[in-house]
This record gives sequence, C-alpha cells and structure tokens, in this order.
Amino acid sequence: MKTFASDNFASVHPNILKALNDCNNEHEFAYGYDKYTETAISKFKELFGEHIDVYFVFNGTGANVLSISTLLKSFNSVICASSAHINVDECGAFENFSGAKLNLIETIDGKIKKEDIQKYLHAIGVEHHSQPKVVTISQPTELGTLYTIDELKELSDFIHNNNMYLHIDGARIANSIVALNTTLKEMIVETNIDILSFGGTKNGMMFGEAVIFFDKNLSSDFKYIRKHGLQLYSKMRYISAQFIEYLSNELWLKNAEHSNDCAKYLEKKIKEIKEIEIVQKVETNGLFVKIPKDKIEILQKKYYFYVWDEEKSIVRFMTSFDTTKEDIDNFANYLKKNIN
Amino acid sequence: MKTFASDNFASVHPNILKALNDCNNEHEFAYGYDKYTETAISKFKELFGEHIDVYFVFNGTGANVLSISTLLKSFNSVICASSAHINVDECGAFENFSGAKLNLIETIDGKIKKEDIQKYLHAIGVEHHSQPKVVTISQPTELGTLYTIDELKELSDFIHNNNMYLHIDGARIANSIVALNTTLKEMIVETNIDILSFGGTKNGMMFGEAVIFFDKNLSSDFKYIRKHGLQLYSKMRYISAQFIEYLSNELWLKNAEHSNDCAKYLEKKIKEIKEIEIVQKVETNGLFVKIPKDKIEILQKKYYFYVWDEEKSIVRFMTSFDTTKEDIDNFANYLKKNIN
Amino acid sequence: MKTFASDNFASVHPNILKALNDCNNEHEFAYGYDKYTETAISKFKELFGEHIDVYFVFNGTGANVLSISTLLKSFNSVICASSAHINVDECGAFENFSGAKLNLIETIDGKIKKEDIQKYLHAIGVEHHSQPKVVTISQPTELGTLYTIDELKELSDFIHNNNMYLHIDGARIANSIVALNTTLKEMIVETNIDILSFGGTKNGMMFGEAVIFFDKNLSSDFKYIRKHGLQLYSKMRYISAQFIEYLSNELWLKNAEHSNDCAKYLEKKIKEIKEIEIVQKVETNGLFVKIPKDKIEILQKKYYFYVWDEEKSIVRFMTSFDTTKEDIDNFANYLKKNIN
Amino acid sequence: MKTFASDNFASVHPNILKALNDCNNEHEFAYGYDKYTETAISKFKELFGEHIDVYFVFNGTGANVLSISTLLKSFNSVICASSAHINVDECGAFENFSGAKLNLIETIDGKIKKEDIQKYLHAIGVEHHSQPKVVTISQPTELGTLYTIDELKELSDFIHNNNMYLHIDGARIANSIVALNTTLKEMIVETNIDILSFGGTKNGMMFGEAVIFFDKNLSSDFKYIRKHGLQLYSKMRYISAQFIEYLSNELWLKNAEHSNDCAKYLEKKIKEIKEIEIVQKVETNGLFVKIPKDKIEILQKKYYFYVWDEEKSIVRFMTSFDTTKEDIDNFANYLKKNIN
Repeated sequence: MKTFASDNFASVHPNILKALNDCNNEHEFAYGYDKYTETAISKFKELFGEHIDVYFVFNGTGANVLSISTLLKSFNSVICASSAHINVDECGAFENFSGAKLNLIETIDGKIKKEDIQKYLHAIGVEHHSQPKVVTISQPTELGTLYTIDELKELSDFIHNNNMYLHIDGARIANSIVALNTTLKEMIVETNIDILSFGGTKNGMMFGEAVIFFDKNLSSDFKYIRKHGLQLYSKMRYISAQFIEYLSNELWLKNAEHSNDCAKYLEKKIKEIKEIEIVQKVETNGLFVKIPKDKIEILQKKYYFYVWDEEKSIVRFMTSFDTTKEDIDNFANYLKKNIN
Repeated sequence: MKTFASDNFASVHPNILKALNDCNNEHEFAYGYDKYTETAISKFKELFGEHIDVYFVFNGTGANVLSISTLLKSFNSVICASSAHINVDECGAFENFSGAKLNLIETIDGKIKKEDIQKYLHAIGVEHHSQPKVVTISQPTELGTLYTIDELKELSDFIHNNNMYLHIDGARIANSIVALNTTLKEMIVETNIDILSFGGTKNGMMFGEAVIFFDKNLSSDFKYIRKHGLQLYSKMRYISAQFIEYLSNELWLKNAEHSNDCAKYLEKKIKEIKEIEIVQKVETNGLFVKIPKDKIEILQKKYYFYVWDEEKSIVRFMTSFDTTKEDIDNFANYLKKNIN
Repeated sequence: MKTFASDNFASVHPNILKALNDCNNEHEFAYGYDKYTETAISKFKELFGEHIDVYFVFNGTGANVLSISTLLKSFNSVICASSAHINVDECGAFENFSGAKLNLIETIDGKIKKEDIQKYLHAIGVEHHSQPKVVTISQPTELGTLYTIDELKELSDFIHNNNMYLHIDGARIANSIVALNTTLKEMIVETNIDILSFGGTKNGMMFGEAVIFFDKNLSSDFKYIRKHGLQLYSKMRYISAQFIEYLSNELWLKNAEHSNDCAKYLEKKIKEIKEIEIVQKVETNGLFVKIPKDKIEILQKKYYFYVWDEEKSIVRFMTSFDTTKEDIDNFANYLKKNIN
Repeated sequence: MKTFASDNFASVHPNILKALNDCNNEHEFAYGYDKYTETAISKFKELFGEHIDVYFVFNGTGANVLSISTLLKSFNSVICASSAHINVDECGAFENFSGAKLNLIETIDGKIKKEDIQKYLHAIGVEHHSQPKVVTISQPTELGTLYTIDELKELSDFIHNNNMYLHIDGARIANSIVALNTTLKEMIVETNIDILSFGGTKNGMMFGEAVIFFDKNLSSDFKYIRKHGLQLYSKMRYISAQFIEYLSNELWLKNAEHSNDCAKYLEKKIKEIKEIEIVQKVETNGLFVKIPKDKIEILQKKYYFYVWDEEKSIVRFMTSFDTTKEDIDNFANYLKKNIN
C-alpha cells in the first residue's frame, strides 16, 4: 500500500532502475571521471546553458549544506525562513559543517520578502555581528507554496545589490517548474540564482542530487568541500546514469506533474471533509491540514504521516510520482471514516 | 569626559590596579597553579559554597561560549532569547566553536518563559532535529531587565525536569544582586543554576571573567576546553589578584550599586525630556530609549552611544561604576539642548 | 576493459543489482524504519552476535569520520598510522567534522604497535595537549597488509587498559577475513573491537557501508551524528536490500576470495618482470610496486593506476571481484612489454 | 625565588605596570577604537613600515590560531614542524578552530627546510587530500634554535613560489632579533613574511600579543575572526598602553638581551656538570638538557621545570627578563648538588 507521508517513502521509477542495470558494465573511472558523469553534466547544460558547473552528491542535506558553505567564511551568516529545511530538519548540519550562523525570518507561508532581509543588513561591517552573505530559499517551500518568477527576480536583485548570494533548495524543483508552467532557464537562469540544489530522490530517483553553480568563480572550491563533506561518491556512474535517464524524455517533469495533479485531487477530496482545514495553498505536491488533535494517532496507524506543528495540530500529506487515483480515494475514505 | 555608551568604556577601579601592582613579585606558577588563583577560588567558595568549580577566562564571550559548549554534543541546541548576547553580539562565536545550534525565542523584554521553551521540546528524540540541551539566560538581560528569584526558580525547575541545563550569562551579575537586594546563594545556588558566567570587566576590573560550575560532574572537561578555546591565560595571577580584590570588602557590590543608582538618576532626568521615550523598565544600569531618528548622529558626536534597534530608533545609554552625578547632569542637559 | 587502479572502478555484482530491482515495490518508511533495514540488521547480528548496534551510511569516509567522532569530545585526539585513509585520503574530513586532532605514527607496513602509541599517552591529563581517546587501524591496511588476530588482541588490550577505544576501518574487511581464514566473531568480537566500519562498495555493492557498534553505550548518539553528518539516507531500503544480498550465501566472502586470489596471481606474474619490485607483502587484493619513474605515465595511458609515493616511485595495483585471469594476463603482458 | 621553568612564570616589568597605571583615566572607546591603540599601532609601523595591519589579541595561542585561520579554507592544510607549539601545546586549538589539518615535519632542531615541504605539494589539486596553504615556523623555535636570515629568505621564496603563505610564531621574537643582531625590517619585512604573531607576555608584558599582517589583502577578515575567535578585548587600551611602553626605549630588546645573556651564563654553568648533556644549541633563552631520569622529580621539587621528552629524559630550562646572575648561580649549585 501507499502512504501519504512523504515523497521519499516512494519507490524508484522503473526507467531509473533500468538505467542502473544498463550502466553496470566493466570498469569505470571512480569519483566522477567516467563517461556517464560527462553525459549527465551535458544533460544539465542543455537545460541551464553551457556556463554552469555541476556536481553530484548523495542527498539533499549534503547538497544544501555543502553548496551554501562554499560561499561562506566562518563569520558569515545565512538568511532563511524559519521553516527552511536547513534550519529545522537537518539536525544542525549547517551550523556544524559551516561553523556559520542562520539568521531566521518568520513567515506565514514559507516565503521570505526583501523587507524581511533588511533588518539583518545593519550588521554589515560591524565586527560584533555575523556578516550576512547568502540568502537561501526553497522552491517550492517546505509548505508547498511557490515564489512567482517575478518574486524570485525581485528577491534576487535585492540580494545581489547587497553583495549577497541567492541559493535555492530545489529538493522538489521539478514540482515548481510544472506548477508554474515555466522552464529552468526562465525560473533559475534568468532570475540570476547563484546556486541550485537540484533534487531527484523525491521524484523517482534512487539516490543522488545535483549542485548547480551558475558562476564558475563560485564553484572552484567545491570539489574539495564535497570530498571533506563526506559526499564524494566513488562509483559515481551510478548517480550519473540515473540523472541521464531522469532528464531524458522529460521523465523529471512527468513525474512531478503526476504528483502535483494527485495533490490537487487529494485537495478536492479533503475539502469534502469538514473536520479538516487546509491551511496552506496547494500549489505543488504537499498538503498542510489542520485535523483534530485527538485523531492524529488513530489516523497514523494505517497511513503514517508527519505532524508539522504540534501546537496547532497541523499535519502534512504528500503525494508522489507513484501515487494513484485509487490510493487517494482509499485514503480520503479512510480519513472521512476515522475522523468523525 | 565620560560617555554613556557602555560600562566597558569605563576605566579600572583604583583598588584593582593596586592589587595588580601588589602581586607583581617574583615568579609564580603559570596557567593557574599559583597561590593567587588558589585564594581567588576560595573567595568564590565563600560566596557560593564549597561545592563549586571555578575557572578564569579572559572575557565574557569566552566565558559564555566555552562554558555552554562544555555541556554540548555537536548535535545539541541551546535555547535563548533572540536578544541574547550570545546570539546577537558575538559574531557567531557560539555556533563556530560548538558547532551546535541556537533555538531562539522572541521576547518583549529579553526574558524567556517556560511556555516559550515548550515548542522546542517536540524535537527531543527525533534525529532530524537538533536536540535541546541547555537554556541560557542573561541576568540582568541585555535590555537591563531582571528575572525575579521566583521566575528563576520556576524556569530552572522546568528546565531540569526536561533533562536540560540552565546557564546564566552574568556579565553584569553584580548589578542584578544589588537591584534584587539578594545574595548569590539565594539567586544562583538555591535556584539550582548549573553554570554561571560571572563578569568583572564591566564593573571595575581590567580583564578576566569567572566560569562557575555548580556540579563538578559538569566541569571535568573544562580545563581542556578553556585551553583549546584560546582562553587559558599563562600569567593567571594577574586575573586572580583582581578577583581577590573585587570580591573583598564588597567592592563588586559597591560598584554595581553605584552604577544602578546612576541609572535611576539618569532615568529621572530623561523623563523630563518629552522627546525621549524610555521603552524598557530601568532595573539595573542600562536605559533603552526611543529618540527621534534624525537626532541620533548629532547626539553621538559628543556622547557616543550604540543604536539598539535601527528600525525602531531605540538606543542604549549605560552608567558605570565611575559615572558621577555631574556627568549625568551634563549629559541630560546636552540631550535636552540638542534634541529639540 | 578492466583496470587495476582500484576496486572502486569495478561494477556492481549482478546479485546486488537484482536485489535492488526486487525491493522496488510500493512505499516503505523512510530513514531506515523499513522492513528491509530490519532484515539487514538481523543479518549482521547473525555474524556478530545480538549485542551489536548497526547503522548504514553512504560511504566509507562517512563511516569512519562519523563513527570515530561519536567517541570524541573536541579536545580529544585519535591515534593512527600516517598512511591511514582517514589521515591521507579524506581531504581533512576527520579534523573538519570532529574538530579533533590526529596523532600520527610512522610505519613501514601500515601497521601500528602498542609501543608506537606509548609516546602519546604522556599527554593524558595535561591541558596543553589533545587527549588521546581512540586508536583507529585499517584491516587490511592501506598497504594491503594484515594484523594477525594475536596482534589485534594485544593492541586491543593495551588500548582498553589505557581507557581508549579501538576502531577498525574495514573498507575491505571481507578480504582480511578470507586471507586470515577466520570469522568476524573471532577477528572482531573476540578481540574486543569497539567500532567497525564494515565496507561493501569496494567488494561488489553499489553504495552503502555499515557502522557496527559492539557496545550500545557507545552508539546512543549516532543517529543524530549520522543525520547532521550528512549521511542519513532517506530511501534506506536501497542500501539495506544490498546488504541482505551481500551477506547471504557468502557473497561477501566469495567476492573477496576471488579478488585476493587474483592479487596472488598478479603477484606471480609481476615477479617475472625484473624491473618491478614488490615492496609490500601481498596479503589481500592490493599490490605495491616500485617501477621506473619514467615509465609511470606511459603505463597509465592504457591501464590507469594511482601513484602511492612520488618520491620513491611506488604505485598501487588492485584486483577486484570482477577481475579475470585473462585481465591479469593481458595487464602483465602490457607491463612487461612497456617497461623495458 | 625564581624558577627556570618558563618565561611565563616571570612577573611584569615595572615600566609596563606603570604604563597601565598611567592610562587609567576617564572613559575610552572600547574594542580598540581608542587613542592608545592608535598610538600603539603607530609604534609598530615605525618598526615594520606603514604598510602593515596590526591587531591585538589576548594570548599567543589566539594570535597563532586566528591569524593562520584567516588564510585558510576548511579543506586546507598548514605545514609545520612536529615540535611546533601549534601542534603540541595548544590542545588541538588549531584543528578545532580552523577545521583544517596540520601536515607535520619531523626535525632534529625544530627547523624545517624546503625539502621537507616538497612531499606535501603532490597533494595540490587532488580532491582526496587537504590542500597546503600556509607554512608556519617559530622564530626562535620551540627548541630555542634560530633560522638565519638567509634561511628565512630561502624558505619564504620557496613557499611563495608554491602559492602558499609563511606565518611566524614570534612568541619570543625579541629574543631572536637580539640573538641575530638584526632588525624586524631585515628579519621579517625583507624576507617577505606574510603574518607575524608578535609576542610580549613572555618578555615582561602582563598580557596581550600582536598579530601583524604585511599585506592588507590578507587582513580584511581578521576583525571578524578575532571577535568570533573569543579574542576581542573590550577595554583594549590596557593592552595598547603596554605595547606603547614595550616598544619604547627598546624595552622589548633590553629584556630579551638580558634573558639571552642569562641563558648563555646558565649554559656555561651547566657545562660544568658532567651528568647533564645539553642537546640543542643555546641560541636564545631556552636550554634543552638531558638529565638522569631518576633525578627529575627530585630536582623539580625546589625548581619546577617541564619535561620535554619523557622517553629521552630531556628537560627544558628557561631564563627570563627578571632572572639574575645570583638566581643562576643558586640554581646551578642546586643542580650540581642534587644530581650526583
């Protein structure tokens, strides 16, 4: 059976598995000096342009922490939403690896605005305070919401005008591309993002994420940082072969489109249950809903899910590339039956 | 002339200087194995009891960062007010040295309550989140306000019931003892504080702070942490001799009483100036006042002071052990004359 | 074609790939709370005993750095051979993650003796020096040599008598078990090793290593350290399924036996080439040979390999589970032809 | 009585104490923005030239660790003699603060040569290895020996030709200037040293060391690193006033000359004792001698001293600015009487 706990409860897309089987031939250079990695990188260049630098790592926490750290000195700070994965869900990995500080912004919907950043800029040049250097946002946010392209552009301009960099945690970047009916070039390149963590594992891959630098001056240290950040994979071809397949025939977009559509359908079904309140706009594949506190444990028994805010009794449901209409119908029925 | 910028603009009390001159004899064991250090420690034991462990360090940032770090593993977090010195004014020293995370609490007056701590306790046992281990508060707070002894007791009980430790940043601890008309035993020992950073530099000493552990199980690592935290002073007698004098004849209390009284007097004078609004209760030696934004630079020219909140135009005035009534009268007149 | 550069140039064993295909069903709990992980752990318990604690990570550097760090405070040091992977080949990952120090021992053959450890013990209790807490050895060593079981026992006793822990980097642990004709129980459990990094990637797996704790008191923090050390894999079943297969039907031993045998055969062939001198005993699957400096680049063109010691012109050849007799014959002929 | 344990057992020179008394007037800007600091910096510029950048810190460990860290990224390494203070005597402070690695060189006399550095340069550009960026030497070395100016020049050229920086730990820099009958300009500026830790505490000051940057491009981050490295002193004038006095009327040179002369006299006296062997050239104020192992504890009872090498029974004697001929005569007699 399928849960709605997270898109990382899902399996691996059959095409990805086939690609892993197909690349299992003979010897290859280790650590990324193989032909599959070369091809995977060229696939990314088709999407983003020739000017990028691409590195593969094991997981999303690795992609975020290491890529942001590349831009930092130990006395810097990174500005992010308090709901950011890097703040809440990585067990302090960022602070531990970088030795730097997070400057948090409280938000309603996971999105930060340039006005929120302003207050941290007074610190610049004053030795008593951490020096802001990077802003990191998630697209979609951890609350499933989206920055519009105009919002990204405005944020990016403001950040660059203040001599800082903009990083995007794109663990579910495909879902945002589909939802906004846009392209990576338009959403990422033309808005002048500096670094993108490009996720695959939550959308049908087995493992592996990509870090994309849009300025080669920023990436020159990354190969060392990846290695001593415990994220250099020896048999790299087995990540690269996945990405080649993932980026071919729009598999990444099709998977994301499917899970977004499933979320919309689940939203429709949940709206029929008056005891559940949807508290965030459903823009990608996550639903944030308020349910009666005393029902949480009962509901989790069959369909495990995560509690997002214990105080407010908000929980998260997610769809994934392998969710079916039938799964949703069953789940909605189960909710309806058990919540009364 | 005297400013009202900070108590660390002040000079050294003459008795402290005399003590430094008097101890300048012959050779002494380095690194704290000298007779002055032994005596200074016994002075602290008179005030707190025989069960304590005392270590001297160079400065307040060292005292806070190193003593709290002693209690932590790299995946822990420390809960504090967002206004805490350790969060705002130490250039990220805490995160950098400990590799751990700060969990922040927004406050009105710099004081945190047990209800504020609650939300971070949901993280306990869940590997995705930093594990809360220490709560650190400042007494007085960075906003000059005070926890009552009952508040300290309640906080301490709650914290210990949740298997955490309570650290106090006592950079101005003397000012709080005087203001609350209490003793260290009553305020610190009987409320079961775990570690105290006991400040001296802001109250008439030349340099040196003490870290006091109230449970020897917590202090066993500290000598190594002090050393590799860059805070082991070779010619230790020159801190110890200061503390001997500071704790003798109630010099520490007299100095603090004087600066608190000066703050009260300055408060009275400022209340006469209708353009200035006092925004925090004046309980120790700091005043937080809102002044017209366009007057800040003009006023700073003669009497330099720090801007506390640029957005709200709040600035800080401080008195110190060497402030005189005349200094205050002159300053108040200057404010009055220049603010209209 | 196959190289002799490293066992991580090799492909994935077909049985492992099949296991990955077979587990690709439906949803599973993420982060190791799935049924495959439960089974994989029980497989390890069959080999080592019920008292162990097992955690899976992505790679060997992760296994070493994180497991050793679990035992350390920031002021500790770890004693190892200067040839240790953790010292030479992890780009400083150990120092960076742990903040602790390596105390190095120069060796001829990669093996350290208790006499070598002695000199670092004078530091104990003295605050000016890092405090030794862990000794880490590699079995087989990075030079392909082996500790006998008696040597392991003697080292382990000495280390424990001095209140330290013994960690083994077992990236190629299977090769040592086969070479010594022993069992994990005899070599690891009965010699009282504290932590073992159990490798799989170099012996036919796609990715994933296991960290094995032999005392549950030592492992209680590891789940947090793995997460904030960037090594918690979300879709954990895909490591676990590999380990289930790897430990079934002695696949791990068969693969290692094959590569050891290949090394012996290559040794025999190389001994026929008088220009090449074998400089380390060939006990597992690595050969360290001295070749004329001016021939290195020429030879690398067809069969890439790593130079081990530039000054002494020593290079490394490795065999792997998929090396064939024909591969070796071809390689030996190539060497013979091109080295004259 | 006076010991020969270390120059940090000594007291503070009376002129320095007087300077502390004299600067104890009114309020001064904190954190180094005061007039004494301005003057002290200009004193350093007289000695080194106008192009330098000077920062004051509390102690030598702070000066070394923070100044070297300024030049590093986390994946870098620093090359030093295995006898270096930063390796042996700072409890791992360097690794902990910088997260970087030390690459050690074994020496006979504490001095490293360019040939020793060579082997670490093979790592450059290879992501598996820490990237060498700084060489740090001590002048005089921890063994009391000296680099000649020609040796410094040769080392410096080699280091710069390999795109690295050269740092000098000058905890006892004055003793080397006197011993080599040279100037700071000749020994430091003309040899193109990049950063110097300029010590004062071991030569008559109470506390405080200076970090001198000879290229302002290297120092731009240091104010932040000093702050978050726990080494920014609030009442900075009390370090600065000491340095003003220390650098006036050649006090720093006179003190060093006196302690060097004392060491020569002690050397002469010790040569008369046949049971003691002097094992390093006596060039500054330290003597390294081999004494019978069973006499160490007896001798330490009256005159405490440090054991340098337990295995070889080598101990260290040091003279200081306040040692007298009579002190030496008494000590030599005591040694003679107790060693037979």
